[in-house]
Amino acid sequence: MNKAYAFLLGTAFLAVPAFAQQAEPLDAAVVEKIRQEGLKNSQVMDIAFYLTDVNGPRLSGSPGLARANQWTKDKLTSWGLKNATIEPWGTFGKGWEVEKSYLALTKPYYQPMIGSPKAWTPSTNGTVKGQVVLVKATKEEDLAQYAGKLKGKIVMMQVNNPIKTSFEPSAFRYTDEQLQKMAEPVQPSAGRAPMSEEQMAAFRARRALATKMSEMFLQEGAAAVLSSRSGSHGTFFTSNGASYAQDAKPVLPEFEIALEDLARMSRLLSAGIPVEVELESKTRFVTDDPQGYNVIAEIPGTDKKLKSELVMLGGHIDSWHAATGATDNAAGVAVMMEAVRIIKALNLQPKRTIRIALWGGEEQGLHGSRGYAKKHLGDAQTMQTLPEYDKVSAYFNLDNGTGKIRGIYTQGNEAVAPLFKEWFKPFHDLGATTVTNRNTGGTDHLAFDALGIPGFQFIQDELEYDTRTHHTNMDTYDRLQPEDLKQASVIVASFVYQTANRKDKLPRKPKPQPKQS
Amino acid sequence: MNKAYAFLLGTAFLAVPAFAQQAEPLDAAVVEKIRQEGLKNSQVMDIAFYLTDVNGPRLSGSPGLARANQWTKDKLTSWGLKNATIEPWGTFGKGWEVEKSYLALTKPYYQPMIGSPKAWTPSTNGTVKGQVVLVKATKEEDLAQYAGKLKGKIVMMQVNNPIKTSFEPSAFRYTDEQLQKMAEPVQPSAGRAPMSEEQMAAFRARRALATKMSEMFLQEGAAAVLSSRSGSHGTFFTSNGASYAQDAKPVLPEFEIALEDLARMSRLLSAGIPVEVELESKTRFVTDDPQGYNVIAEIPGTDKKLKSELVMLGGHIDSWHAATGATDNAAGVAVMMEAVRIIKALNLQPKRTIRIALWGGEEQGLHGSRGYAKKHLGDAQTMQTLPEYDKVSAYFNLDNGTGKIRGIYTQGNEAVAPLFKEWFKPFHDLGATTVTNRNTGGTDHLAFDALGIPGFQFIQDELEYDTRTHHTNMDTYDRLQPEDLKQASVIVASFVYQTANRKDKLPRKPKPQPKQS
Repeated sequence: MNKAYAFLLGTAFLAVPAFAQQAEPLDAAVVEKIRQEGLKNSQVMDIAFYLTDVNGPRLSGSPGLARANQWTKDKLTSWGLKNATIEPWGTFGKGWEVEKSYLALTKPYYQPMIGSPKAWTPSTNGTVKGQVVLVKATKEEDLAQYAGKLKGKIVMMQVNNPIKTSFEPSAFRYTDEQLQKMAEPVQPSAGRAPMSEEQMAAFRARRALATKMSEMFLQEGAAAVLSSRSGSHGTFFTSNGASYAQDAKPVLPEFEIALEDLARMSRLLSAGIPVEVELESKTRFVTDDPQGYNVIAEIPGTDKKLKSELVMLGGHIDSWHAATGATDNAAGVAVMMEAVRIIKALNLQPKRTIRIALWGGEEQGLHGSRGYAKKHLGDAQTMQTLPEYDKVSAYFNLDNGTGKIRGIYTQGNEAVAPLFKEWFKPFHDLGATTVTNRNTGGTDHLAFDALGIPGFQFIQDELEYDTRTHHTNMDTYDRLQPEDLKQASVIVASFVYQTANRKDKLPRKPKPQPKQS
Repeated sequence: MNKAYAFLLGTAFLAVPAFAQQAEPLDAAVVEKIRQEGLKNSQVMDIAFYLTDVNGPRLSGSPGLARANQWTKDKLTSWGLKNATIEPWGTFGKGWEVEKSYLALTKPYYQPMIGSPKAWTPSTNGTVKGQVVLVKATKEEDLAQYAGKLKGKIVMMQVNNPIKTSFEPSAFRYTDEQLQKMAEPVQPSAGRAPMSEEQMAAFRARRALATKMSEMFLQEGAAAVLSSRSGSHGTFFTSNGASYAQDAKPVLPEFEIALEDLARMSRLLSAGIPVEVELESKTRFVTDDPQGYNVIAEIPGTDKKLKSELVMLGGHIDSWHAATGATDNAAGVAVMMEAVRIIKALNLQPKRTIRIALWGGEEQGLHGSRGYAKKHLGDAQTMQTLPEYDKVSAYFNLDNGTGKIRGIYTQGNEAVAPLFKEWFKPFHDLGATTVTNRNTGGTDHLAFDALGIPGFQFIQDELEYDTRTHHTNMDTYDRLQPEDLKQASVIVASFVYQTANRKDKLPRKPKPQPKQS
């Protein structure tokens, strides 16, 4: 038995064939220390508590995000990390926050409603009480009938997605079968068929109609817009209702509300029964600093030759505004911070420098990580690279909620797969096993992957991510799973440590070609 | 083959043994007509729409309940029912309704909260902004530390029930196995053990402490109370925060709020972080008429000898206030109304008189049905009965949400079990099969059962009843299941018709003894 696996004695892994263990021996003693520190002395829930309950929403550009940036920078410094900095990544636009939100049905009877102003929408003119007008339009001509009738009115569109009662649980963990399937290469035919010409035209027509409607409602002097995307039982999904650009076009105040509330109004108005609502939104724009920021900090490397090289880890710290962004993505930030805390607490001596990055502007298009990449690493369009480009061994990202780590996506980097398989072995008992060569998108590892730098996102149990937490008003501390976050912290700490101390940087995919402009 | 089952040809029920069918032949042609009318021309969702979306909450004594009483009386009359009346059942107390409800966290940051004033609590003194005080007390002495410190404050108790992520679906239907188990007699040992002396003492102590706290908060001049029972993801459960009696003791304004919102404040205050909220409740008491009412209407019997006898059906029409009481119990009312509509629409000629009763005051203690029983049937304490006592063949009740009928409880009346089994046969294909001699409680059939008059509640699929709808702010029209309600309507119509037209009244259990006073 390989000494490296001594601590696994008594577990299910005695049968691991010897040759696999030879590939790249793990520092089993260090992994065991990481497990002890991360599972027994975890601070991950304390970190998450501060990022969510104490700090509040962290919308890009908002005072809330600025507070969180300052707190994380100070916290990382307090643990002994070096060079902690709140670093601008480029121009973002306007900050925005909610100072008041009130919303109720007042006719045919009184009932409070659940909702929130959409991000970057303006205040109402104080408390507004007005009739609700249900606008039914499938093409521009349909709008003519509303001309001259919307002054002071609250407008809404028909609700076409009635709420279905679900017999499925809103929280689930991956089964072994599902994980196994994820590990298989994707069949070329398995992808979604591209949109047909006809579908594209219909999509463009819908978008053009939506723009036309917004303009018309504004011109006609409507008081506010009510809308809803999805959700149920008091959970609603939220987003922005206007651009955050400094020169954004004016829009009406708009609330995103519980589908139950909107569906009721839709049914009443469709039956010819007048509906009146009372509402107030008071929102504040912050325009004194158009820049966006990331928080960066380091554990300097200790090997004379290797300390100029970097192992990066991170996740985005910005969130949507209607809750405290617990699973999207205080969870990821807390885990990444806890991972470096564990490494510092154990006084591990990483050969390479470990750099943690907490990104801003992710929700609006991975702005923070892309801005960082452009500034530090290179231009993904021209593929002109900067000196640090060759120094980064890997970037590890976490941004899929509160669920524990079940595996990792290599993004098609098949050469790293055997390493990661090996690195997961001490964590098989905690449910982390799967290495897939598939791609996953939607978050900040893409900024690295686009340059050909190894950038990875972990596979996490989804729990309630799509049903209840991701971009909802219910993404609160209550959703966080302490045991899952501890598990993720020790796995990330271990992966980062292995990457920092192995002989070579991680293998890279071939360098991408410059994009056609 | 028995003619009565001709329409079942081609279904799974050809194998029913002939002897069972002889017991009491069903009028198969009528049952088939009821199915056609109730499944093809249903108005059950229209009725439910008016009771919920159009009418609003129907709290006992409120203007909302008065509107619903008037609407149902008119509707029943419009279908040709006779003697429709809004009949007082006795003294209820005060009416109450919400005119404004606003609630937000304002420190450490702004975020709207989800909640509602508790029923029968007074208005706040306009908009109140105040510090939240977390009161930690397990015995009266613990309260001393808060003396002189609560003036103008918002008080809350510690939240001890953190929200667990559930891997179970919130909606479910009974499995065959579960139904089979329900049909078995209860083992005497299966019941819950009675409270021990010690437990009783602890329970009384907790109640006494709660009363003491309420009095103290009021005396100290606190501005409002925040509380939560349970619920998650924006769903909260609601109830009353004060007595509805005309001479009720004064209480503070109190909001029942989403557990997420209360839990956050509890965590923040426990960590020593100041919390401020802004809130306003404007509630209106209605004191001009202390009486409570039921809605009663009839389809007169057509048989000279039997028309003085009664078959009754009903459900409570009152609801809680934080939603529109869709599953509790607009669903039951809509089904019972639809059942009599079907009977009228088909111009069936019931031998006995069919009387529908929509009860008020159920949520506060089955007041409407008990008041009715006392006035029309007899006194369940003394067992002194009135002339109508002997005339009632049966009362059928529906009050377990929107789920379809899966069976019926006989309340230990074993003699009716064979009849009901027979009557369910034409509905086996719709999932209704189970007859259990067990008791079920909690709703208006008890008022009849207490007198020894056959009173039955159906077994219904629970769907989201305990998790999302029963007494919550999310008990809205969206929760209603059209196919389930149609199924229930045809089964009730059929049961009522069979009861009205069979030779004898339904068998009764032995007459109860007078209760010891």
